[in-house]
This record gives sequence, structure tokens and C-alpha cells, in this order.
Amino acid sequence: MPQHPRITCNTGHATGSSADSGRKPADLTHHFNASTRARKPSVMKGLYKYFMVPGMSNIAGGLPYPGFFPYDTLRADVASPERLLDIAFHGLTPAKASSSFFSRRRREKDPKTSHISIPKFEPSQPAEKRIDVATTLQYGRATGLPALADFVREFTFAHMMQGQLAYAEDQADIVLTCGSTDGFSKIVQCFGTAGDSMLVEEFTYPNALQTAAPFGISTAPVRMDEGGMMVDGPGGLRDVLENWNVEKSGRRPHLMYTVTIGQNPTGITLKRQRRKEIYELCDRFDVLILEDDPYWHLQFTPESHNLPSDTETKYPFLAALELSFLSIDTSGRVIRLDTFSKTIAPGCRMGWITAQKPIIAAIVAATESSTQQPSGFVQGMVAELLCRAWGMDGWVAWLESLRDVYEERMVSMTAILEEGKEIITVTSRDDLEVVERTQLYSFNKPEGGMFVWIRMDVSSHPAYKAFISRGNSKADMLTKLWEWNAVTQLALPCPGGMFTGGEKCRDKADDYFRFCFAAIELEEVKAATSRWVQGTEKFWHLKAWEIEKIGEAESVIGTGANKRGQDGGWGGWIGGKGRFEVKFEDF
Amino acid sequence: MPQHPRITCNTGHATGSSADSGRKPADLTHHFNASTRARKPSVMKGLYKYFMVPGMSNIAGGLPYPGFFPYDTLRADVASPERLLDIAFHGLTPAKASSSFFSRRRREKDPKTSHISIPKFEPSQPAEKRIDVATTLQYGRATGLPALADFVREFTFAHMMQGQLAYAEDQADIVLTCGSTDGFSKIVQCFGTAGDSMLVEEFTYPNALQTAAPFGISTAPVRMDEGGMMVDGPGGLRDVLENWNVEKSGRRPHLMYTVTIGQNPTGITLKRQRRKEIYELCDRFDVLILEDDPYWHLQFTPESHNLPSDTETKYPFLAALELSFLSIDTSGRVIRLDTFSKTIAPGCRMGWITAQKPIIAAIVAATESSTQQPSGFVQGMVAELLCRAWGMDGWVAWLESLRDVYEERMVSMTAILEEGKEIITVTSRDDLEVVERTQLYSFNKPEGGMFVWIRMDVSSHPAYKAFISRGNSKADMLTKLWEWNAVTQLALPCPGGMFTGGEKCRDKADDYFRFCFAAIELEEVKAATSRWVQGTEKFWHLKAWEIEKIGEAESVIGTGANKRGQDGGWGGWIGGKGRFEVKFEDF
Repeated sequence: MPQHPRITCNTGHATGSSADSGRKPADLTHHFNASTRARKPSVMKGLYKYFMVPGMSNIAGGLPYPGFFPYDTLRADVASPERLLDIAFHGLTPAKASSSFFSRRRREKDPKTSHISIPKFEPSQPAEKRIDVATTLQYGRATGLPALADFVREFTFAHMMQGQLAYAEDQADIVLTCGSTDGFSKIVQCFGTAGDSMLVEEFTYPNALQTAAPFGISTAPVRMDEGGMMVDGPGGLRDVLENWNVEKSGRRPHLMYTVTIGQNPTGITLKRQRRKEIYELCDRFDVLILEDDPYWHLQFTPESHNLPSDTETKYPFLAALELSFLSIDTSGRVIRLDTFSKTIAPGCRMGWITAQKPIIAAIVAATESSTQQPSGFVQGMVAELLCRAWGMDGWVAWLESLRDVYEERMVSMTAILEEGKEIITVTSRDDLEVVERTQLYSFNKPEGGMFVWIRMDVSSHPAYKAFISRGNSKADMLTKLWEWNAVTQLALPCPGGMFTGGEKCRDKADDYFRFCFAAIELEEVKAATSRWVQGTEKFWHLKAWEIEKIGEAESVIGTGANKRGQDGGWGGWIGGKGRFEVKFEDF
Repeated sequence: MPQHPRITCNTGHATGSSADSGRKPADLTHHFNASTRARKPSVMKGLYKYFMVPGMSNIAGGLPYPGFFPYDTLRADVASPERLLDIAFHGLTPAKASSSFFSRRRREKDPKTSHISIPKFEPSQPAEKRIDVATTLQYGRATGLPALADFVREFTFAHMMQGQLAYAEDQADIVLTCGSTDGFSKIVQCFGTAGDSMLVEEFTYPNALQTAAPFGISTAPVRMDEGGMMVDGPGGLRDVLENWNVEKSGRRPHLMYTVTIGQNPTGITLKRQRRKEIYELCDRFDVLILEDDPYWHLQFTPESHNLPSDTETKYPFLAALELSFLSIDTSGRVIRLDTFSKTIAPGCRMGWITAQKPIIAAIVAATESSTQQPSGFVQGMVAELLCRAWGMDGWVAWLESLRDVYEERMVSMTAILEEGKEIITVTSRDDLEVVERTQLYSFNKPEGGMFVWIRMDVSSHPAYKAFISRGNSKADMLTKLWEWNAVTQLALPCPGGMFTGGEKCRDKADDYFRFCFAAIELEEVKAATSRWVQGTEKFWHLKAWEIEKIGEAESVIGTGANKRGQDGGWGGWIGGKGRFEVKFEDF
């Protein structure tokens, strides 16, 4: 089958067309796979309406009686949106702190705890507004609890997107998911077909690849530079798409999986110009963009701190953030994944997908015959918190405070890493003091997210050549370094090989470690990073034979789980190869 | 490919073999489809263990900091297990009430409300026992929160199964699901292949079929009698399997979907002998049995009230219940689906699957790359209720009380239906009073579950012949009857056609209505059933032209949603054909 580039924007409004004609997205239903075409749309909605007819007795639906649900109320003690102020702003400029909406709120209120309560019945509310036990714990709609779905819709289109969706809002919709892994799995099941290749960044989130792989979908990695996925040059997106070999690799990719803000693992945030160039190529080659954006609220770029000074902007914090691909998505080819995992808690297992309506309808149909809806416990608890206790103002304030407390950790970690990246040796030679610098590793400061991606330069190790000449590999040395710091410093970063976008970039990924500054307390982040830095410097002073001996002292750690060659240990370290065969769902 | 019956119990322990050799299930991994074979098992467990090493700093995993979760506690007012006693035992015999474990509890305690509370941190508990916000709302294990999974495991094997699993318990396991629709969807994704036919009862739960259909899996319906799925005779299981036409219908079915207790829609509970005969056939033809059992605790047979009199039995209620297919599953070919939807609440979206370990491992792998785990809110809330507040005794007492309150509704509804099933006309002829009985419908009393399945005999209607001769069909008359009772009596049962196991039994299913006695209050169940009975009697007095006019008054209902020919209305009534094209996820 010949594979020529094709323009599929059959309504004639590709990027660059006039605003009026561009308000309707293209018909992209040709991307639906056989399963999706075989699914019939649900006709449940009409039924629910019918149940609401006054006086109608429902002896049809197999619903249990809500009076027999053992929960009478659901309650919680929760943070007020201002709580994190107490620990924020340590490492940030006063100028920034005083100009933010968040700090303006700070003057009015103190950090405190609130209480939320969900009653059993809320008859005074219309059905569409109810957040009560009888509603949230009953069977519900695949699109989500109406009150919560409405809040998410408003937040997405009016505030997160700043009203800048590239097509008309009435052509778009959202559907709640059971977290973004569930959402991505449903997208793959709706649009993927065995034999497909999916475009990915050359370093990427491993769980996405492992979700797609069982459906017969492999990856087509695209090279990255410090700006993110590359457009031009060898291995860039244009090269991959234009020079796709159908005979060798099958159908040209029609799906792209991408994390564009605080990318996992690199921490890169894709800027406007690069975003446009990628979009134009996707539009030209009819690629659906699956934009997974768990870290959008965690942006650390200078631009994100450059708050608009006008008084018209309701949420300056949001206005300064880099926008989603949806903001330039004239064709409606972006399927965006959001999650509450990083804003509320991962255990929510709740998020949402935003896309043009026919795409959402296909995902709703897939939801009806799988998860049906997120648990009513999480829908109720999050709806009560967001719609009632916090409101939109509180929610946005909370997001800004999260950005600030995570940025503080990032600043602390990178400062320590920066200091330790070189060994400076001063030697006297004749009358001169000679300064010699040995670079141990390098990294760019994260522009968002939760990770620092550092590239180790083990070839600068004085014993490197000796170590290799004794029959070891570079990957072996990286393995030994990782083990050395785990055992002697009790500091555990992630080996970079886990994040490879495909086998062909595996060696490159192996040179990296990914550090996360999110999981533990700030003081422990600092201490663990310092220990790792010290351990690394010590490692550079080891002899080749000493390096080879690392790993014999594993029992120090007490589990033996990281023993080389033992599967099921730390990330499934595979003995001898210096490779990780890992499935990290949560990383 | 020739399709000969084959015995796959390759460890030599088919049904009937000695107890010792029969304790290990057969290797059934040849049922795994291509996706399942492509999935690599997770190596996460070792990682979690590693995080627990004292002093180890986790700068690897992308976990958010639990101190930033906005929930400090989760709390609820809940029923104590005795609450439903207040409204139970109305229609049951004193003998039964006095002999039950439940009534023994009654003497000790009064119905009441308790309070549960989940703290943010529970450092005093070992990690495997913790039910705290920091654990439940963090990323967790695909097998479920350990404390809850342990409770479910104990309940399943020791109590629900009464310790009678047909193979060794250490060969079996459970995995939590996001409800049984999610569980069934995962099973289909692990074991189904496009082109498969799945054995089903001729009347069955429509959502299961609609979950399988998009994966290219059609149904092979098996005839039922009052004992459930038939083994012998035309259309019975033996007939379907032995006479399977591979050329015409493709691969012989290797999957069976069945609801065996309080079957939806028929209310039939499969008895021991029939169960054995079905199992033997499945074993002979290597069929995996997908046993969906949402109503197992709602058994209404005389046997289920015949409590063991010995004092050794801890839970007489459970001991008297019909057992799962797992109790005779010597080969390990049963994959059982349980749910909290009917025991706690549908909005939980939580249940569990029980099967032999390699099957559970495949489903765990599918879980890791989709839902990951049920929401931590529901896991935490249900764990706190079951493991801490109620304990096993309270949980079993609650289940028995649910059986009693639903049985009371069943008794009430069927008494009213029984009374109205005939029109008795007494006419004087000469000196004799002649009694004429017209049967309007017939039904068997449900043996479990939430439904009464009644077969309408519209051909007994005095105007039936006239109605047909005017160009109408039997299905049209059933449609008119349904509309008549909806409009004039505000009583809504489910049209039977929704529950057809396949196109070829559609006409048969159309003769039925399914009544649910669960969703509404007992008094309303009675009132709605009475109205429906009265409306039906009135319908039998209508003339053919009056019947034809039904439907013109639909605006009485106020939504217009049930207008014939209008899709998306009440269950998607399809105009003119008297057929329902319906997707009922929750029925």
C-alpha cells in the first residue's frame, strides 16, 4: 500500500485557515479501529431521564435500594487551599510571591483545616447537582457524576485552556477516567490496531509503552534535544514520518504519545514554536496526538513566573503557564489526558480526557463496557472538595501552591547536584597551581514536573579504561555506580534505561539516572541528594578492581532484592547485562 | 482444523480422580490470547519491598508527597451490621428467624449507627495492615490494598466457598477489580480472540454480551429450563458443543459466560447436580467457565433456609447456600466474578476475581496497564468497614440481613403477581355457574437475585386474533401492553427482548417482562406491582382498535422519551418492530 502524506482536514480548515472556518474540527473517525466501529452508542441516558418522571415506579432497572447502602454519610478533614503556604516560598523571589494571586489570598486567610460532609440524600438539589451518598454510590453515568463533570469541564475549557481551544467549545467534551493509565488504555483500545507503530519521545514514560505493547503496538522513537521532541534533523519527527519505510515497518504511525510539560523523565517543557511545528507535521501526516499531561500545573520556567500584570486576568498563575496542544488543535486531532494523581492523590485513580465529541463518544462507549465510571467514593469526595468546599478559586490556589512547594524541592535538589557535578583537583606543578576539573555528570534544570534527568559521564572516571580492559562494559560501570550509592548512601534514583522509547535508543538511555524530588520530605530530598553526590565523588576515586567488587555487600540493604541476576528485585535488574527490564506503572 | 473433543487436564486429574492427585489445577495457559502472551509480568513488588528498607531514601519513584494530599482523614457514618433487622423478618417463618445466626446476634444488640475514621498516617501498623490515607491514596498494588485483599481472600476461600475449593487453596488467588464489568472486560481481553463464540444462557445479562462484542466475540446461546442452562436435549449444552459446525461458525466455544445464582433475568439458581453435568461437559470440551455471581448471597430456595443444626458451623447462613462452580472445579477452569455492587453499593465500582494463580497473574498484568487498582477512596472506606468496624462476623450478618430484606420484597411482589395472573369470569348458563379462567401470564418464583421473569400470554387476549388480522404482530401487542402500563399505571418493568442471548432466541425473549423488586421501597414495590396487575387486567378488556391507539397519550409521561421510533428514549424503543436495542450497563 503506498503511503503518501495526506491532508485529512476534510472540512478545509487546516492550521492557518481563517478563524471562522476553523471552528469545527475535522472528521477523524477513520482512525477508529474495528472494535470501536463495532460498539453501539449507549442509549442509557434516556432511561435515566425516564426514571425521574414524577410518580414513575422503577421496577425495571436492577438497582439495589440505596436505603440498604451501609454508608449514611461520607466525611473528611481536608486542607483549606491555603495550607501549603506555610511551607512554600522558601526558595522563591519576593517579587514573585507578592505578585501572585496566591499570595494575595494569603493575606486574607491563615492555613487551616476544613471539614467536608456528604449526606445520604440531598433532595433539595436537582439531580444534576446532587453530591449525596444515594447518588454517588448508585449506578451512574459513564461520563461521570454530573456535578463533578461540570466542574471539570469549566476548569478545562475556561481556565486551564484559558478559553483558547482551537475549535468551538461545543464541539469538544470531557469524560472522566479511572486515572490516566486507564484513559490511555481506552484510547489505545479505541484507536490502535495490532501492527501500528506509535510515535514517542526517545526517552519516555515506560508504562505507556507497556500499555500499548500487548495490543501489538510498537514504538517509533523521535529524537529529543533540550527543547523536547525534535522536528528537524536525523531522527527528528519530519525524518521519521517522511522517510517511513512501509515495507520494513508497516503502516506509517497515526498515533503519537507525548508528555509535553515537565516531561517524564527529562523535565522538559515544550515551547510554543516547537509545539506548532510538531502539530503541523501531525496534521500533514494525519497523526492523532495523545497528550498525557500529569504535570501541567508544575511548570518552573521563567515564563511561568512572569504573571500578567493586568487586573482583568482572574487567575494570573494559569495565564502564565504553557498551554496544551488543544490550543492550536484546529483539526481536533489532540486527545488530552489529565489526572488528579499529582494534584490530589494517585490513589484517586481518577482523571479525565478532553477531545472533540466523536472521539469522546467512542471512549464513553468503551467505558460503559469496562469501568463504567470512577468509584462513587472518589467522585463524591472530590466533587464535595472542589465544587463545594474549595470552589474554582480554591482549586486554582491549591494548584499554584503545589507548584511552589514542588519547585522549592526542585531548586534544592538541583543546587546540590550542581555543586557536585565536577571534581576539582588542584595540584602544584613547579610554581604553578594547576586546576583540573573532572565532569562526573551533566543535567539541565527541569522546566516542570517531578524529575531531574542527569547524564553520567563515567568515561571521565580515572579507572574507566582499566575497568573496560578487564572485560566490563560501560553499562556495567553505571550498574556498579547505582549499586554503590544504593548500598553505601541509601540513595535510590531510577536507572535511565527504563525510560527508553525503544530498543534502538536503549544505550543512550542507559547513560542517565532519573531523580525524583517529589516523594519524600524536603529535608530528606536534600540529605539523600547530598549523600548521592558524596558517594559519586567517592566512586570516582575507586580502582577498577574495587568497582568490580561492588555488589558483594548487598546484604547491608537487608532484602537481597537488588542482587544482580535476581528478577523481581529492584526494578528487575538483569544480571550481567546492566539492563533494567522493568514495569513501572506509577513512575 | 478438525475440532475433536479433547481432555486438557494434562496433570491427570479430571473430575472424579482421587483427592490427592486432584489438588493441583490443570495448565490452561493455552487459553491465553496473543495480548496476554505479549504481556510481561510486573516486577513492581520487589521495588515496593525495597522502598521499605530502613533509612532508604526514595528519589526514584514518581510518587507525590503524601503530606500534600489534601485529605487528612476519611470518615463516615455507617450502619452497624444489625441495622436491617428492624425491617427484616416480616414475611419469613419464626422457625427460620430463631434458628439463624443473625437472629442470635439480634438479642445481643440493637440496630445502630457506627462511625469509622481513617487517619492520615498509621505508623503503628505494619505496612501490610495499614488502612491510612497516606497508603490508600498513594500508588498501590494491582492486586489491591493488602489489608482488604487479605480480608477478601479469607472470606472467599474460608467462608463463601466453605473451604471447599476443588483444588489446593495455595494454587488459587484473588485480584480486586473496578467492578465486575471491568473484571469481565479484562477476562475477555486476556482470553478472548476475534471470531470466538461464547456460550451463554439463552436469556442473559445484556451488558456482558456488549462487553464482548467489540472484541469480535459473538454468542452461542444454550437453552434453559426451570433448572437453568440445559445439558441435554435440542439446544442444550451437549447438543451445542457436540454438534458445533466449525465450517459455519468458526472455532468451537472455549468460553462460557454464566450467572448461576438468582440468574439475571430468570431468577433461577443452578443446583448441584446440573452444575456437575455442565462442568463435566466444559471439562471435556476444554471450556473456561466465567462465573458472574453478583447475587450469590441473595438465595431464596428452601434449601438456603435449611440451616445446619450443628453448633460447629460458624456461619449457618453461608453453609446453607448453593456453592460456586469453584467447589467442583478440579481442573481450575472457573474464573469467578464477585462484586460489592449488590452487597455494599454499585458506586463502589469494586469487586474481585477468583481463579487459579496463572489466570490471576494474567489479569493482574492487564490491571497494571489499565486501571492499576480500584480507587483508594473505596478501598480505604470498604477496608475500614469490613476489616475493622464489622469484622467477618458483622459482614456475614449484613449479608444475611440483605438476603432477608430482599426476599421479603420478592415474596411481596410475587404474591401480587400470583393473584393477578388469571382473569376469572363467572357466567350463568342455564342453571349452572360456569367459571372461565384466562391466563394472562406465568412465572416461577425466583430462587435468588433481584428479578421476576414473567412470560406474557397475549394470545389469550380476546382481541388477539382481531389485532393480528389488522396487520399487527404479537410483538406489537406486547409493546402496546408495556406502553399501556407505563402511561396509565406509571409502572415500568423491563421488556424481555433486552435479555436475549442471541438473535435466534430473540422472539422467545420478547414474550417476557423482567420485574425488579430491589430498587424502590417495599411499599412502592407492592403499589407498583398492584398497579401493573390492574392495568394488565384492564388491557385484556380492550378492543383491538383501542390497543392500536395506545401510545398517542405518551405526553402524559412528560418526556416523550418513550415515543416509538425515537432512539435514545426508554431503552431505545425501535419504532414499528417492537424490539429493544438497548445497552443496559447496570441491569
